[in-house]
Amino acid sequence: MALAFDSNRIDFATYQPKHFLWSLDGKVATITLNRPERKNPLTFESYAELRDTFRELAYADNVKTVVVTGAGGNFCSGGDVHEIIGPLVRMQEAGDMRGLLDFTRMTGDLVKAMRACPQTIVAAIDGICAGAGAIIAMASDLRVGTPESKVAFLFVRVGLAGADMGACNILPRIIGSGRAAELLYTGRAMDGAEAERWGFYNRLVAGDQVLAEATKLATSLAAGPTFAHAMTKRCIHQEWSMTIDDAIEAEAQAQAICMQTQDYGRAYRAFVAKERPVFQGD
Amino acid sequence: MALAFDSNRIDFATYQPKHFLWSLDGKVATITLNRPERKNPLTFESYAELRDTFRELAYADNVKTVVVTGAGGNFCSGGDVHEIIGPLVRMQEAGDMRGLLDFTRMTGDLVKAMRACPQTIVAAIDGICAGAGAIIAMASDLRVGTPESKVAFLFVRVGLAGADMGACNILPRIIGSGRAAELLYTGRAMDGAEAERWGFYNRLVAGDQVLAEATKLATSLAAGPTFAHAMTKRCIHQEWSMTIDDAIEAEAQAQAICMQTQDYGRAYRAFVAKERPVFQGD
Amino acid sequence: MALAFDSNRIDFATYQPKHFLWSLDGKVATITLNRPERKNPLTFESYAELRDTFRELAYADNVKTVVVTGAGGNFCSGGDVHEIIGPLVRMQEAGDMRGLLDFTRMTGDLVKAMRACPQTIVAAIDGICAGAGAIIAMASDLRVGTPESKVAFLFVRVGLAGADMGACNILPRIIGSGRAAELLYTGRAMDGAEAERWGFYNRLVAGDQVLAEATKLATSLAAGPTFAHAMTKRCIHQEWSMTIDDAIEAEAQAQAICMQTQDYGRAYRAFVAKERPVFQGD
Repeated sequence: MALAFDSNRIDFATYQPKHFLWSLDGKVATITLNRPERKNPLTFESYAELRDTFRELAYADNVKTVVVTGAGGNFCSGGDVHEIIGPLVRMQEAGDMRGLLDFTRMTGDLVKAMRACPQTIVAAIDGICAGAGAIIAMASDLRVGTPESKVAFLFVRVGLAGADMGACNILPRIIGSGRAAELLYTGRAMDGAEAERWGFYNRLVAGDQVLAEATKLATSLAAGPTFAHAMTKRCIHQEWSMTIDDAIEAEAQAQAICMQTQDYGRAYRAFVAKERPVFQGD
Repeated sequence: MALAFDSNRIDFATYQPKHFLWSLDGKVATITLNRPERKNPLTFESYAELRDTFRELAYADNVKTVVVTGAGGNFCSGGDVHEIIGPLVRMQEAGDMRGLLDFTRMTGDLVKAMRACPQTIVAAIDGICAGAGAIIAMASDLRVGTPESKVAFLFVRVGLAGADMGACNILPRIIGSGRAAELLYTGRAMDGAEAERWGFYNRLVAGDQVLAEATKLATSLAAGPTFAHAMTKRCIHQEWSMTIDDAIEAEAQAQAICMQTQDYGRAYRAFVAKERPVFQGD
Repeated sequence: MALAFDSNRIDFATYQPKHFLWSLDGKVATITLNRPERKNPLTFESYAELRDTFRELAYADNVKTVVVTGAGGNFCSGGDVHEIIGPLVRMQEAGDMRGLLDFTRMTGDLVKAMRACPQTIVAAIDGICAGAGAIIAMASDLRVGTPESKVAFLFVRVGLAGADMGACNILPRIIGSGRAAELLYTGRAMDGAEAERWGFYNRLVAGDQVLAEATKLATSLAAGPTFAHAMTKRCIHQEWSMTIDDAIEAEAQAQAICMQTQDYGRAYRAFVAKERPVFQGD
């Protein structure tokens, strides 16, 4: 939420990022990775701009949910071989550990920013979803995918560890430790049916409906008590490695705060009046 | 276990709580939420009495497992709209943050007490299992459900966060982070088939058999090495957010204690004699 | 990796353990529990030798993956009743708590050593996989099983807690808390279909192919970037109970290290040359 003293923020209603598409329809923003001829790979610049965008979203009043998708029937092919892997190998040859660490921290900061922003993020996944693309899908809150999609944590295929941008910590919590280990060690693709069966996808829809379905879900959430949604997201994050007792106390505080919002009173009064509540996110 | 100096405890053989039914058959207690005309909602008083009952169970020698169920074909509809939500909204209007936090801490204390008592808790779930009802099911150790049951973490429907009584911490460990996020953000019901497929239910049985099946499971556990069962429950709790190495040391100590119980010797001697062991819980 | 000053290590090319079979084919070692007439039970001596072997593997350059299996159509029946449970019950009768704790710590140290060694461990599971056998399967990185296999955490059947060798901490992360609780409280066997459906098995194959399939998987991993695989294993371990943000920083460091390996450059150059990379594990 923008504070009076918090000036010079991005205006998300007119935002035009350089390295991906942005649109805002009502309270729902859509980020479209848009280099379809190469299956939407990432570059240093698009990583940084995605990171900065999610960081800025923490201050946005007018954006309540975010859909992330890719153009042309693919989600994202990950870090571009020529524009990212090549330069990193040259850093290696130059012994530039500082440069390598700057890169891995920047990519990690994208995931941190996705987890820290108050908006619920819904990924719409078709076609190739590989490497950093698989990470962006993993780091979203909800995932709608297609039967034809392929999600591959393929870092091992380029000689790297499955330990990238938090995957060894986050992926096991979504699909279980045994299945996560297989994907991270082998780099093999998880197909759409597996992704749904294992709990990676929340639902499976046809390719020509995946963006519409994700947008419908995001629109529905944006019409809900978004202050409370942001608290749910914050609690999932802060309680990730808490004990049960500490988590219960954290939620007692969090929910008591939510009980002071107007949306709570609106819901109660609508119920008494036998009407549907109209939530406003405050 | 009651100590000699630990007097004035509840006598669970004759216990008659005011806000739910209690029965004790052998070593198996059954708690029945019993306002069937309203699908067994909770009130301030029934929350408090449930919390106090589970706290007292820590001292009970004669109760080894607990079945939790609801009367009239439903489990529990959650906090009563008129008897809980109304008063809380009036606290909000009065700016009574202390009162709101007293309430959220009391509900959290019910979950803490369920996790801390040494008895294994088996929930028998049919019909509506919503809000705090879904939490009580989640906080149980084992869950037997029916195909017709509906489990809904519907806090969002009344304008609140999914962060209630530990749900953001506990539910993801049962069904995975992605599926838990969907239930907590949308408030939608998980049906019986999903609940079994996702690992929320341990088994699925017909509505006219669900209580019998849960009771059979609880009776079987009560006939087992209940000192060891209590140690299993304690270890699941204390190792919730431990490292692997620390958890292994915790279990080395816990199991060494169990190897000093009489039930361990009973099992060995029965095996040698080609008999079935008769466990006594000490 | 053996250091120059690190002498007197086991030569794994010629290693002949006393209590199980060892073979090394290329970079893939196979451990075969080999008392088929009793379904491959463990003894004090075989526990200790397994522990010491996995500890030594931390220093082995020539072993990149390990397959664990059992002879004669069964994986492992757990601690031998006569050779382990009997002596432990006599320790109990003698009030030898120190001896009992020495034992539980030794068994826990086996799991610690399996999680700490840099090799990826693939279990090939057929027939009976019970007690400590189930733990060895659980502590492996990947599991290939058969439809006829039975995995039972049956400690409760001998009067003990399910809290053994880390099971209350590790098993819930693989199959979910609700399903783990059922197996640990009841001691019942999980059959092959359940094990695959719940994510305990990575794949299900016929009994006459299970060892070949596990070996094929291990061989494939051994031909990969094994330095990176070891980092993946280390990260899964160290991030087990980290917050998301801390895990992301840990992986930024881990992956920056892997970006300094020769395998990373090999993968890039092979890609540019449109060839398959030949990884060497450095």
